[in-house]
Amino acid sequence: QTNVTVGGLVDVYAGTRQLSGQADRAGVVHSGGMTTSWFGFKGSEDLGGGLKAEFALTGFFQGDTGQSGRGFNGDTLFSRDANVGLAGSFGRVQLGRGLAPNFLPTVLFNPFGDSFGFSPLVVHANTPGSGGWGSGVNAADTGWSNQIIYTTPKLGGLTANVHYQFGEQAGDTGINNVGVNALYFNGPIGLTAFYHDAELSNPVPAVSTTRQKTFMVGGSYDFKVVKAFATWQRNKNELATTEAEVSTDKLYSVGLSAPIGNGNALLAYANTKRDLAAGADTKRNTFSVGYDYFLSKRTDVYGVVMADKVEGFDRETSLGLGIRHRF
Amino acid sequence: QTNVTVGGLVDVYAGTRQLSGQADRAGVVHSGGMTTSWFGFKGSEDLGGGLKAEFALTGFFQGDTGQSGRGFNGDTLFSRDANVGLAGSFGRVQLGRGLAPNFLPTVLFNPFGDSFGFSPLVVHANTPGSGGWGSGVNAADTGWSNQIIYTTPKLGGLTANVHYQFGEQAGDTGINNVGVNALYFNGPIGLTAFYHDAELSNPVPAVSTTRQKTFMVGGSYDFKVVKAFATWQRNKNELATTEAEVSTDKLYSVGLSAPIGNGNALLAYANTKRDLAAGADTKRNTFSVGYDYFLSKRTDVYGVVMADKVEGFDRETSLGLGIRHRF
Amino acid sequence: QTNVTVGGLVDVYAGTRQLSGQADRAGVVHSGGMTTSWFGFKGSEDLGGGLKAEFALTGFFQGDTGQSGRGFNGDTLFSRDANVGLAGSFGRVQLGRGLAPNFLPTVLFNPFGDSFGFSPLVVHANTPGSGGWGSGVNAADTGWSNQIIYTTPKLGGLTANVHYQFGEQAGDTGINNVGVNALYFNGPIGLTAFYHDAELSNPVPAVSTTRQKTFMVGGSYDFKVVKAFATWQRNKNELATTEAEVSTDKLYSVGLSAPIGNGNALLAYANTKRDLAAGADTKRNTFSVGYDYFLSKRTDVYGVVMADKVEGFDRETSLGLGIRHRF
Repeated sequence: QTNVTVGGLVDVYAGTRQLSGQADRAGVVHSGGMTTSWFGFKGSEDLGGGLKAEFALTGFFQGDTGQSGRGFNGDTLFSRDANVGLAGSFGRVQLGRGLAPNFLPTVLFNPFGDSFGFSPLVVHANTPGSGGWGSGVNAADTGWSNQIIYTTPKLGGLTANVHYQFGEQAGDTGINNVGVNALYFNGPIGLTAFYHDAELSNPVPAVSTTRQKTFMVGGSYDFKVVKAFATWQRNKNELATTEAEVSTDKLYSVGLSAPIGNGNALLAYANTKRDLAAGADTKRNTFSVGYDYFLSKRTDVYGVVMADKVEGFDRETSLGLGIRHRF
Repeated sequence: QTNVTVGGLVDVYAGTRQLSGQADRAGVVHSGGMTTSWFGFKGSEDLGGGLKAEFALTGFFQGDTGQSGRGFNGDTLFSRDANVGLAGSFGRVQLGRGLAPNFLPTVLFNPFGDSFGFSPLVVHANTPGSGGWGSGVNAADTGWSNQIIYTTPKLGGLTANVHYQFGEQAGDTGINNVGVNALYFNGPIGLTAFYHDAELSNPVPAVSTTRQKTFMVGGSYDFKVVKAFATWQRNKNELATTEAEVSTDKLYSVGLSAPIGNGNALLAYANTKRDLAAGADTKRNTFSVGYDYFLSKRTDVYGVVMADKVEGFDRETSLGLGIRHRF
Repeated sequence: QTNVTVGGLVDVYAGTRQLSGQADRAGVVHSGGMTTSWFGFKGSEDLGGGLKAEFALTGFFQGDTGQSGRGFNGDTLFSRDANVGLAGSFGRVQLGRGLAPNFLPTVLFNPFGDSFGFSPLVVHANTPGSGGWGSGVNAADTGWSNQIIYTTPKLGGLTANVHYQFGEQAGDTGINNVGVNALYFNGPIGLTAFYHDAELSNPVPAVSTTRQKTFMVGGSYDFKVVKAFATWQRNKNELATTEAEVSTDKLYSVGLSAPIGNGNALLAYANTKRDLAAGADTKRNTFSVGYDYFLSKRTDVYGVVMADKVEGFDRETSLGLGIRHRF
């Protein structure tokens, strides 16, 4: 079978979970301690003259129950990727469901990567909190449906992506999500930024009552003994109709990754200040420490502790011991 | 892996959609401009003596969102095929979910093939209209569950299929769908016909209050410079209980496909006259013009405009620019 | 693609179904006459030093409609397996969704194997009856989510499995399912036993109001001309809160499998006595006779008749003629 590659990743851990504001601890076997589990199909075809056709059909799943998607209602079978496109010297154009502009700058610029369970930055940016904290900082999901993505060719270590998500609302072509990001890697240096203006939810592009404009920057430097990460972002939410301010989140994160033995020691911290136009302002900070040991290139085992605190609530800890396997 | 083939097709387009009777136009990224996107698993095993075991497990999906199925509730994971059977000199017997008798005669005898987005014949036959038009002309879906299909051996270019779908209703084994079709291809000539008597819906075979009897004929002739298509069908709906007439649809279509450069220019027209036993009669006509350019055998790009008119409403146009990739 | 194997099984039959207590017979095309249809992905990676990483992502489906799962609400995409683990000289540890302790002792110790349609033992143990019979004998499904499984190394034909399913209830880590089983195979002799203490349902581990403690033993002996099977189990249900008795089921089964020609003649009987703490006691017995003919190692065709009787209702028969294909 030369036209399609079957692949994916299973990541499951045993541990305990308790976020700040939750009344009690739960013993769990959960999916996605380090990376959200996924499976799927990908392929590319050489069309000649440097042109390629490419497709990806990949879906998230829960490695603890076998459930399709990321555990919330409405996630689709191919929730991670469902797109087809053309790539060449001009860059790449993709049609369908794919990454949102916030994804790569977030997961490539913190030591815990795309851990929705334990990365302080990802937990603040993309998952809801407890104790009245409400939704995560970034609106409009980490993947967008009904999208056109244009990716530039790599120019001296720099790549940029332009994202446009159709609202598909009859008679109102102005409702959509737009965003751009940039990624720069050169030797030990990494730099990133993204901007999005988002008003739709996924995968069904329901129109939200709030519209979010977000600007984020991040950087990393590899000192060899340790790699350092830092990010900063501001998310401004306003009423979609009147543009009246609803809230503003300011989120920064710092992290370290140090190669020790056949693995990496990981340390990260995220801090969000939430200013509400109506109601009291609030704060949240979360830090995690872990060790990720590689049994092979494809398989690693890890242990992580995360401590989460929402202002006015106790600091609570979560713990995971897991295995991650790529296929 | 010699026992199973992984394959499929991703077809996504950007454009605008507005059917006659819809108030406004929507900008969209949609799936299935030329062919409904699908993925799945197939295989066959040589049992000796000319006998083969065959299976197919394939499912439709939305290439714009990753959603399983064709976008309506109740579509199953393997909505396209879920069957196993034996094939030999006697023909083929399949058990499970597979094609309905209306499918091949419809999609092989119009220039836009199985385009549920832009083929006038398929749009009339198998998709709902707007402006009070209601459901498409053919009842009982283009695939049937709980089915036994018998396919004859090919006899001088002629193949016939007999379809029987179990109603699975306790104590009433008389409720089911039955149908036959025939396909004849010889040099430039193609001929087809189908008949079905259908009272069940899919995939759960709920019993409908109406029973439909449909007869359809079609033909094609390849003049080399251009290939011509024509179909005609009559769909008669009656109350399942009393056999009182409910409505009769008469649908004809004509089309042309002309090889130009590395692709095909496509032109098609469909016309339906709907006679209602109660209420005013109505008409619908739709035409499409397009060009389908092949980048390779597996990948093509296309542009199509469709203009749809339901009696008493304005003619409205839809437009798509897309890419279709087979894997 | 060396890292993953795509495989599965399609089993579909045509026939009639009527359990004792059902008013009428239904003609059907159904899935899983001999084995529940499934598909999926598996792989293992050699980590050196006798250590292996293993994963399995497999899901049940209905071969007659293409529906995901086993036909009841809440079954997940990978309802059969969603786990990852490590195996070595110490045995195997798996995290995620996998077999329940009741599964292998049940399906390996009756002549109809894992036939949820026609095996008297499996029908009694794991499927609901009609005529007021209610649910099957075993609580908590044949697969458990959120589980840690430890499998011993094979010691002179003996293997044992320890199962622990997390309840994932905040503040109450005592709610969970636990179970053990043992399997012994040596020449013509097979022996098995399982015990479970189960209070959760699957795949979402909702807490049940009843808690079940079950003990089962079974054996088989291969006389070459015929292989004989026998099992006995007692399932005790009590209120989870007060430990007051709710009901006790006593289920025994016997069976024979005889190689005849290129297939096996199959005969089996199961008998359950249900003692209710409140209300009248009741009984159910079921027997099946069948012939399973192998066209190849991968493909067989079968015919089975099953006769089911719940006390106070007529004995009713079901019939299936089907094909089973492994890929």
